[in-house]
Amino acid sequence: MSKIKLGILGGGEDSLIGILHRVAANMFDQYEIVGGVFDVKHEKSLKFGEKLQLDQSRIYKDLDDLIQNEARLPDTEKMQVVSVLTPNFLHFPMAKKLLENGYNVICEKPLTTTYDEAKVLDELQKKNNSIFAVTYTYTGYPMVRQMKTMIQNGEIGQVQKVDVQYYQGWINPLIHDKEKRAATWRLDPDISGISCCIGDIGTHAFNMAEYVTGMQISEILADLNYLYEDNPMDIDGTVLLRFSDKIKGVLRASQIATGEENNFTVKVYGDKGGLKWEQENPNYLYFLKEDQALQVLKPGHAYNSDFSLEGTKLPPGHPEGIFDSMGNIYFGIANAIKNEIKFDGAYPQLKDGLKGMSFIEKTVASHKQGNVWVKMQD
Amino acid sequence: MSKIKLGILGGGEDSLIGILHRVAANMFDQYEIVGGVFDVKHEKSLKFGEKLQLDQSRIYKDLDDLIQNEARLPDTEKMQVVSVLTPNFLHFPMAKKLLENGYNVICEKPLTTTYDEAKVLDELQKKNNSIFAVTYTYTGYPMVRQMKTMIQNGEIGQVQKVDVQYYQGWINPLIHDKEKRAATWRLDPDISGISCCIGDIGTHAFNMAEYVTGMQISEILADLNYLYEDNPMDIDGTVLLRFSDKIKGVLRASQIATGEENNFTVKVYGDKGGLKWEQENPNYLYFLKEDQALQVLKPGHAYNSDFSLEGTKLPPGHPEGIFDSMGNIYFGIANAIKNEIKFDGAYPQLKDGLKGMSFIEKTVASHKQGNVWVKMQD
Amino acid sequence: MSKIKLGILGGGEDSLIGILHRVAANMFDQYEIVGGVFDVKHEKSLKFGEKLQLDQSRIYKDLDDLIQNEARLPDTEKMQVVSVLTPNFLHFPMAKKLLENGYNVICEKPLTTTYDEAKVLDELQKKNNSIFAVTYTYTGYPMVRQMKTMIQNGEIGQVQKVDVQYYQGWINPLIHDKEKRAATWRLDPDISGISCCIGDIGTHAFNMAEYVTGMQISEILADLNYLYEDNPMDIDGTVLLRFSDKIKGVLRASQIATGEENNFTVKVYGDKGGLKWEQENPNYLYFLKEDQALQVLKPGHAYNSDFSLEGTKLPPGHPEGIFDSMGNIYFGIANAIKNEIKFDGAYPQLKDGLKGMSFIEKTVASHKQGNVWVKMQD
Amino acid sequence: MSKIKLGILGGGEDSLIGILHRVAANMFDQYEIVGGVFDVKHEKSLKFGEKLQLDQSRIYKDLDDLIQNEARLPDTEKMQVVSVLTPNFLHFPMAKKLLENGYNVICEKPLTTTYDEAKVLDELQKKNNSIFAVTYTYTGYPMVRQMKTMIQNGEIGQVQKVDVQYYQGWINPLIHDKEKRAATWRLDPDISGISCCIGDIGTHAFNMAEYVTGMQISEILADLNYLYEDNPMDIDGTVLLRFSDKIKGVLRASQIATGEENNFTVKVYGDKGGLKWEQENPNYLYFLKEDQALQVLKPGHAYNSDFSLEGTKLPPGHPEGIFDSMGNIYFGIANAIKNEIKFDGAYPQLKDGLKGMSFIEKTVASHKQGNVWVKMQD
Repeated sequence: MSKIKLGILGGGEDSLIGILHRVAANMFDQYEIVGGVFDVKHEKSLKFGEKLQLDQSRIYKDLDDLIQNEARLPDTEKMQVVSVLTPNFLHFPMAKKLLENGYNVICEKPLTTTYDEAKVLDELQKKNNSIFAVTYTYTGYPMVRQMKTMIQNGEIGQVQKVDVQYYQGWINPLIHDKEKRAATWRLDPDISGISCCIGDIGTHAFNMAEYVTGMQISEILADLNYLYEDNPMDIDGTVLLRFSDKIKGVLRASQIATGEENNFTVKVYGDKGGLKWEQENPNYLYFLKEDQALQVLKPGHAYNSDFSLEGTKLPPGHPEGIFDSMGNIYFGIANAIKNEIKFDGAYPQLKDGLKGMSFIEKTVASHKQGNVWVKMQD
Repeated sequence: MSKIKLGILGGGEDSLIGILHRVAANMFDQYEIVGGVFDVKHEKSLKFGEKLQLDQSRIYKDLDDLIQNEARLPDTEKMQVVSVLTPNFLHFPMAKKLLENGYNVICEKPLTTTYDEAKVLDELQKKNNSIFAVTYTYTGYPMVRQMKTMIQNGEIGQVQKVDVQYYQGWINPLIHDKEKRAATWRLDPDISGISCCIGDIGTHAFNMAEYVTGMQISEILADLNYLYEDNPMDIDGTVLLRFSDKIKGVLRASQIATGEENNFTVKVYGDKGGLKWEQENPNYLYFLKEDQALQVLKPGHAYNSDFSLEGTKLPPGHPEGIFDSMGNIYFGIANAIKNEIKFDGAYPQLKDGLKGMSFIEKTVASHKQGNVWVKMQD
Repeated sequence: MSKIKLGILGGGEDSLIGILHRVAANMFDQYEIVGGVFDVKHEKSLKFGEKLQLDQSRIYKDLDDLIQNEARLPDTEKMQVVSVLTPNFLHFPMAKKLLENGYNVICEKPLTTTYDEAKVLDELQKKNNSIFAVTYTYTGYPMVRQMKTMIQNGEIGQVQKVDVQYYQGWINPLIHDKEKRAATWRLDPDISGISCCIGDIGTHAFNMAEYVTGMQISEILADLNYLYEDNPMDIDGTVLLRFSDKIKGVLRASQIATGEENNFTVKVYGDKGGLKWEQENPNYLYFLKEDQALQVLKPGHAYNSDFSLEGTKLPPGHPEGIFDSMGNIYFGIANAIKNEIKFDGAYPQLKDGLKGMSFIEKTVASHKQGNVWVKMQD
Repeated sequence: MSKIKLGILGGGEDSLIGILHRVAANMFDQYEIVGGVFDVKHEKSLKFGEKLQLDQSRIYKDLDDLIQNEARLPDTEKMQVVSVLTPNFLHFPMAKKLLENGYNVICEKPLTTTYDEAKVLDELQKKNNSIFAVTYTYTGYPMVRQMKTMIQNGEIGQVQKVDVQYYQGWINPLIHDKEKRAATWRLDPDISGISCCIGDIGTHAFNMAEYVTGMQISEILADLNYLYEDNPMDIDGTVLLRFSDKIKGVLRASQIATGEENNFTVKVYGDKGGLKWEQENPNYLYFLKEDQALQVLKPGHAYNSDFSLEGTKLPPGHPEGIFDSMGNIYFGIANAIKNEIKFDGAYPQLKDGLKGMSFIEKTVASHKQGNVWVKMQD
């Protein structure tokens, strides 16, 4: 009945997302952060661990050090799960080593930098049955979960149209300056993989399209924009989605939608109704029915599904934010570790990260082959 | 200084849009409706004319009758412009006859049922220099005009991304029933041309993309949805837009977005900012600038352009609607007829309707050829 | 079956609201504007009449001239109703003369400058049974009408709280400058009566509170703000409303809510639900029910009442604005003139204007007596 | 540099707000929860402490037990601050004992059940100089802080109108049933003090009015609603606010605004502009300037004040919620305890709670005396 022992790789002083994971881990009183490697520089790592008031002996030099030393601890003390919050290209080697040593893993997205790497992780995980989560953060919002349940329960009937959008503008001030764009690590394939926009945010939209509908995308056709010839990475794109012959969709992602922040929207229409959700106003779910008043669902009400309600901690009218969304995912993972998972989709899994990698590669391939249809890998 | 004499074809008792054109014509005290053919049945036409308190002698049996008899009237009395509000397939023959007889024409969109027909009108119009308007209604909204001016003035810099959407749900209750879809005139190519969704609403979105940016779309790639094999007409589709190698866009249109009404949105992003507008809340224009507060512009304020302000008749805070938008277009046409046009884009012209026909045909062609890039005709 | 002959007093070239009344009168093809007095200067009046293409012989020098000459016309030609759009202090003498001569009257609000004047009109009207409308413009919006019907039908149960707000900021740039405020006609009691803010916009809010609830306000307690000692007129105020011992409300009005345009909102809560509406977004009616999703009703849907639907001319998704609202009121008046009124509340009546005058006087009285409760007159 | 040791009274298994305080305390890695009394039943308290993985020896039987035993711990280990999350009537005795024993205190609002009790705490605190926070939760939102800074910086000029609203509907389903209302503890003066609606939520609105403007309310006039004669507690009310002769405001609070959740809004207008904020959409701050586009400010942007930015942990576009707001307050308290406070208003203080108690008592007094002006106590 004691808390789950959590280790963290990355997420130190300079990290943007470290705090997101720590708050999420603490939210439901399920985890105890016990140590990790917060920075490549051990000095900085130790200092950060001190701030978190952790046992200094468990602030390790590197992952090998961690694995070696944790192995010597009694079972009741050792880390049960490790969060990987490092730069993208380190996800694979670290997650691999963790899996090989029997750890449960929480990994930031994108899972790896190539589909093949992701496939390796997938096989490892299937072998040793570890819990492996990929933090598609937005799937944890109560109203996203409500959307998923409603579609599953047939409240909009047979899905006939899926529309996802993720628009940002952050790369605009960098992309038009030759030196700045050369110096942006997100635009460096060695660090970030083969795609910038699709890899970073398109993948969220792709995952969400499958998550809320419970359907698989089988084929895609992509048109990307690089804007400059010396820029090796897409910064904008539209992807036609095919779930089946009749069920189509469209995904739009951009990092040159100047002035946009995280304008991520999801719309799904079926033959009985439609559902719409916007990440920047996450506490509203719009339910459209022919010839009926528009319905706006909000968190915490009894009319929501148990899955949605699990993620709401206060009565209606208390706005929830991104911390809540990630907190709910961490709660799902905790339940999985404790073998108490109640809801399908309670946390995004390795297979979602794998599919995400396929999406990134196929999207770039479709574009490079002249905007043609390409089949997704399983 | 007397009002412009306006005749109307169609728009009678059973018409949805008749009232829109009449209110628009009256709005700025520019037109006097003097007669027309309101219905194929002369009886009904006469009755409707009586309701409008028109001179019964100018409620004609048909267009030939109108042309013949109007010709006999003194110049100060005869119709100067005729609005064509009939079903789509009649636009061409009627507009052609009107042009051949020297009339100025206001024609509902789509201009014709084929590009070739539209081309014929285009050549006729070039010859006789009539004023010829195609009522892309939404271009008349003050905030659309403001958007156009701001882009023209460089307020968002070089355009780099265009995103237009027109989502409706009205065909959903008809499309899934074999008999109903067979009985829907919008799905009958003989009446409506080769496309339903793209022809009816996609064409608005296409026109708007060119209207607000002042740029031309050169190539498109389309993916349409027909849902059923026995359905000859698209009811949903996504179109990739290319203005140039570097400037891309996307157009989404649907009539199976269940529960949507006229969810027509326009977003344009440049290297200095972004602009967004929504037809269902037409009095708000969203102006996005990096690292600045989001700005929401509204009609009637001195910060708007003269072109925008021309269309606003009351002080700020008095909501404007679709009637205002069409009213502004009719005002632009009146000024053109009086040779007093002040603003570029004051009314949508025949060449816009022609381009619209090209768009419809090329979109269907791109889809049928397997979702490939197709060049637009001029 | 011919159109109703309408005369207009005021509303000429310099008028802001002339166009509102003309468009409204034309909207449903019910009226023919036949003449009037558009300006105190006959020259300007004639010129304006020419623009409207009216018979010059019916552009009169003044109201006496109008009455005398119209009397000589055949019954089928003479004006049946006259709209009074002049400055406030002229409403009374003109309306009185019109009533005395048997005319139906449409009068802008406030009805008069004193309650006693209004009472005179009331008695005259009761005697001769003319149709007399006071244009509380906002009551014509389809969603206001829907709100009224829903409350009447018990959809929110017993009303227990009423909250109305009308916030503007227009007087802010004038009020802080001694000379400017001295030169503002709205702040001159000789022209505008005893109140500025309450008289101009508070009265709209008051009328709306009674209109949508169908209940009468019996007592009020007011706290006004004049900001400067040399300013004789209120420019801001809060009024506590009492419908009965248990049913209370509050009215807030301001012209120093800097930056506000016409932020007029209405909220009514009952023991079964709540309803909210905002003038600046008039096509949305918010329906709140305990433990149910928020419902957003929009115009033109079959779920709306017949009374609401009467005012919507196009299918859902075509935004309506202030012209539509006034148009619906003119339609209601036309039906009353034709003795075909179908709906209670189809147009605001003289008694509403009378009650409005009582409200203005009692509000100022309550404030001047030290913010005490004052009973309303009938 | 170690974390601040935090004890908690109340907030156990059955508590709604316990999680809010725990997440808030953890958010900035400033506190370590070390023990407390989570429930009156020691058994339940121990079980809850176990869940939090606390040292069982620091889960005390009651507050006396806590004080006695904590006193024996070394200075580096003992609690430095205690959060009081118990029912209202226990706030006073507990806070008093804590102050008498030298503790810093974080107390839920309302501070006490009477002004006199609050005054006792105030004097104690002034004597021993403890940090004493009252958790007016909503003041921690980044956009509320931005509003406060902007007003302080003169961005809206001289304040001339303040309008606060807090509408809920939760008591509606209880109030109309005689038995239910008798059984509601919020309506029991022995537990909740003399006021329900004003005491519970009006006090938030009152505090906010003073917080964002930096001004003091000097006089009030209240009109409350009890709905039933056997109901001893107000459930709805309007309060006229006077900051000075010229600066007025209005506060509206209700728990019978059926269907409302936590509809808490703040509007402040000055002679140079206006600012508006809504608790249910806390990440938007509306800035109105005459003749300028409406500006919408959002968290995390460099245009915000340092005070606002301190509370934002992720880049723009990541929605913040109620946890963030309380987290920011806890951060402010931590800085105060560490003597590192940077911003005025970083956490709500005892004097704010004291003023709140005065507000509650004066409001009820004003109402009972017949809705008359009453002066606030300091």
